[in-house]
Order: sequence, then C-alpha cells, then structure tokens
Amino acid sequence: MDRVSFYDTDAMGVMHHASFLKKFEDARVAWLRDSGLDGYHFPKADMVLAVTEANCQFRSPCFFDQEISIFLQVKRTRLKLFIRYAMYDTDNKILATGSTTHVPMNGKLKLTKYPAEFESRLEKEAWTETWPLNL
Amino acid sequence: MDRVSFYDTDAMGVMHHASFLKKFEDARVAWLRDSGLDGYHFPKADMVLAVTEANCQFRSPCFFDQEISIFLQVKRTRLKLFIRYAMYDTDNKILATGSTTHVPMNGKLKLTKYPAEFESRLEKEAWTETWPLNL
Amino acid sequence: MDRVSFYDTDAMGVMHHASFLKKFEDARVAWLRDSGLDGYHFPKADMVLAVTEANCQFRSPCFFDQEISIFLQVKRTRLKLFIRYAMYDTDNKILATGSTTHVPMNGKLKLTKYPAEFESRLEKEAWTETWPLNL
Amino acid sequence: MDRVSFYDTDAMGVMHHASFLKKFEDARVAWLRDSGLDGYHFPKADMVLAVTEANCQFRSPCFFDQEISIFLQVKRTRLKLFIRYAMYDTDNKILATGSTTHVPMNGKLKLTKYPAEFESRLEKEAWTETWPLNL
Repeated sequence: MDRVSFYDTDAMGVMHHASFLKKFEDARVAWLRDSGLDGYHFPKADMVLAVTEANCQFRSPCFFDQEISIFLQVKRTRLKLFIRYAMYDTDNKILATGSTTHVPMNGKLKLTKYPAEFESRLEKEAWTETWPLNL
Repeated sequence: MDRVSFYDTDAMGVMHHASFLKKFEDARVAWLRDSGLDGYHFPKADMVLAVTEANCQFRSPCFFDQEISIFLQVKRTRLKLFIRYAMYDTDNKILATGSTTHVPMNGKLKLTKYPAEFESRLEKEAWTETWPLNL
Repeated sequence: MDRVSFYDTDAMGVMHHASFLKKFEDARVAWLRDSGLDGYHFPKADMVLAVTEANCQFRSPCFFDQEISIFLQVKRTRLKLFIRYAMYDTDNKILATGSTTHVPMNGKLKLTKYPAEFESRLEKEAWTETWPLNL
Repeated sequence: MDRVSFYDTDAMGVMHHASFLKKFEDARVAWLRDSGLDGYHFPKADMVLAVTEANCQFRSPCFFDQEISIFLQVKRTRLKLFIRYAMYDTDNKILATGSTTHVPMNGKLKLTKYPAEFESRLEKEAWTETWPLNL
C-alpha cells in the first residue's frame, strides 16, 4: 500500500502522469526486495534493470493522499525483462495499467547478464493469461 | 533546445526514465504556445489536455547538462489527440521516441470539447508517413 | 519508516537535495493523519498549510533503498505554524535536519484561519528544548 | 529566463515548494556554464558542488507557464561556497529568495579542493551589500 503524495499532484488536482512511472518503480523495487532479489541489484551488486521502454494507461484520476496498491507480473525472455503493472484504489477499482521493459546493465551502462540465481528465481513468477484480473 | 537538469539524473548517472515524460510535456506546452493555442488551454481557458496514455522508448542514455531537442507531431481523431515525440542530441542522434494520447477536460475533470479555432488550427499540423525521419 | 526511492537519487548516487523537502512533506502529511487533523486539511476541507519558508541541513548522504525515519515537532504562533524535522537512518544516525513555516490558506490562495479544533489539538504537541535529541 | 512547467505545479495550482530548489539548481548550473566554470565540474571534471544547506522564502505563488528569472550571487569562504538567489516575474516582482551552501566533493563523495582557476574566477564575482536589490 502506498499513498499519493502532495508533491505528486499537479494543477489539475490529480497525480501527475509522470508520477505513475515513479510509483511503478517503487513497486518494482519492492518486488525485488520481497523476492529476495535485491541482493543481485544495485547498490548491493553491479546490476541495474535499465528501462528500455515504458507505457501507462491512465484509467481514473488519483487524488492527494489516496491509498493505492500496485500489482505486477514479471516475464523474462533471454535478457529482456517485461513487467506489467495494475494500480488499484482501496475499492479495488482500477486506476492505471502499464508496463516496463528492462535489460540488465552494469554501472558502466554496458549490457550484462542476470546471475543464475536471479534467473531461476524469475522462473517461479506467475504470469496469468488474464490481466489485470478485474478490469 | 533544452538541457538535462542535474535533478533529472539518477544514481546511474543518466536522465531518469520518468523525466522523459516531463520533457515531452515541456515540448507539448511549447508547441501549444508556438502554435498560438495556449490561449485555449489552462490557465487562460478552462481546458486541459488530460493524458490518457503515454509511452516512451529509451534508445540512448541522456547525461547531465546534455542538450536535447524534441520534435513532435499532432493528430486529432474526434476528441482524441495523439502526439508523437522524437528526442535528439546535438549530433542529430535519436535519444528517445514516444507518444501521448489526450482528451480535452475542464477544471472539474469532465470531458469537454475543443474550441472550433483549436480544431481548425490542428488541421494545419503536419503528419508524416515516416517518423521519426532519421531513425 | 520510509525508503529512498530510485527516482530520488541523482548522478552522485545519493538522494537529491530537493527530495528532502518532499520527504519532510510526506512526514508532515503523515503527522496530520496520525493526529486526526487531516479532516481539517485539503482535500477534506478548504485549507492547506501553505509553505512560506523551508530550509534543510544535509548532514549525511542518503543512498538508494536506504531506510529513513523522520521525527518532527510543531509549534504555532498565531497563524504561523513552525515545523522542525530530523531525519535518521536505522542506526539512529542523523541524516538531515530542517524546518518549514506555514500559514493556513484556502483554495483561492487567501489567508484563512485554523479551525478551533485544529488549534486545540496543536496545543498538545510536544516542543522540546533540545532538538534533535541525539545530535 | 525560465518557465514554470506543468509538472512543477501541485494541487493548489502553484509551483510546488520543492521545485524552487530545482529552479535554483538550474540557475546555478547556468551560472557555472556562463562563467566558463563548467569545465571544472562534473561530468567534465571530478568535482561537484555538494549541497550542505538550502533554504527558501516563498514570497509570492508562481503559476503554470509563468516566466521567471533568477539572479544569484556567489561568495567563497575557503571550501564553503555560499550562493544566494532571487527569483522574479516579468514585472520585476520578487517571487522567492533563498540560498544554498556548498562544498566541493569528488565522485566518491570525499571533500576535495577547488582548482586554482576556479577560485580565481570566483574572486571576480560581485557581492552587493543590498540584496535583493528591489525587495
């Protein structure tokens, strides 16, 4: 669970569209941590999930201090990591969907590999046919 | 011409991916102004181009203080405004491409119409078959 | 407890100095909520704590994904609300101190009053002579 | 001359207070560049002006797309660089004042020295008794 910060809002009184990518990033980092994968990622390791593509569909405006929850699913195809996101309010209403595509890079911005343990952990990730479930 | 601010960078030493959407927004606002359309837009008028979808392909990293230029093209289909962007460095190398989709909303976040003059001005916008030109 | 987001970092690999004011804001909003005062504040009421002054002393760099805790104290002098902050890491090491000064404004950016209940609640706030305690 | 971006605004319809520090930073970087000092600074050299303290007085709200100008003055005392800022609108009305304090650090976040040329250039900087001039 996260909240819309005041600094996330814009002059229309809603969360600015660029902040959705920030919320997706926080969710991605939380997933890494919860999955025990943050040890393979910067700053603990010399690897980051560089973003090569991002997109977001804004389905309903988000307001200051509103509680939001983000669910995500991860799929790897060789070096490419594809993550999809669904953001909900507390009534389970969909607020936004989106996705980011990543490749592993080292601190010198060169393409690197996923550690074996990172890859084997990814194989256990669920990837459902229907997504998001309640849209 | 714009530059990558220091606050746009992240711990990888490059412009953070969410900042690209901000740069696209600045380019969109500059286009409105240069086209004489800012008079029909908030805060001068009760209309904003609410973002319903956004996406970006990150093709080359952008570094602090680097000069960037953004070109855009606009196409209207009824209420939907589709804008595509291409970001270049000073050597005309492509840095990023992307697009945003918009609908006109008033200050109460209700769907509204484009003013007639806004629409007629949009008809003069170029929309080329090849895009971006030098990719 | 909060964490340094990746988007909070800059090219030096540390939390950007402007993000400290954002973390202070999140702490201020959390305090309003925990104190039962958020009902008197936008968006539930037509009042915001407009910032008239802000300052921050950066004592130690903060890194990506680092856990941080912010303590604050609040003192009212008529319309002026003075809030001081102390940010710590998990070892209780001080990371930053700072303060913000506020006045109550309505949605039209006009000076307004604190509701009586808001004021009486503020009287119960602690204001210690030593601050921050372990500096 | 700069403008308030839409993403700089918040739900009160004005530039968010943390964005003033970002505008100050842009002004500081522009000053480095205009003074021919950017060659001594990251990324061209292994030195940054790490911020040890920042403060801002918000004197008048700034609105979306408003033109702003920032004037600054710089004073060095050994390793400490003190910079003060004054932000104006196009009618020369003061919008904000503030200051930042800096020390030179290298990429490993260790205190370093100013290059001799950097220091000698700083000696030519004006520091007026009255500041800001028209407040």
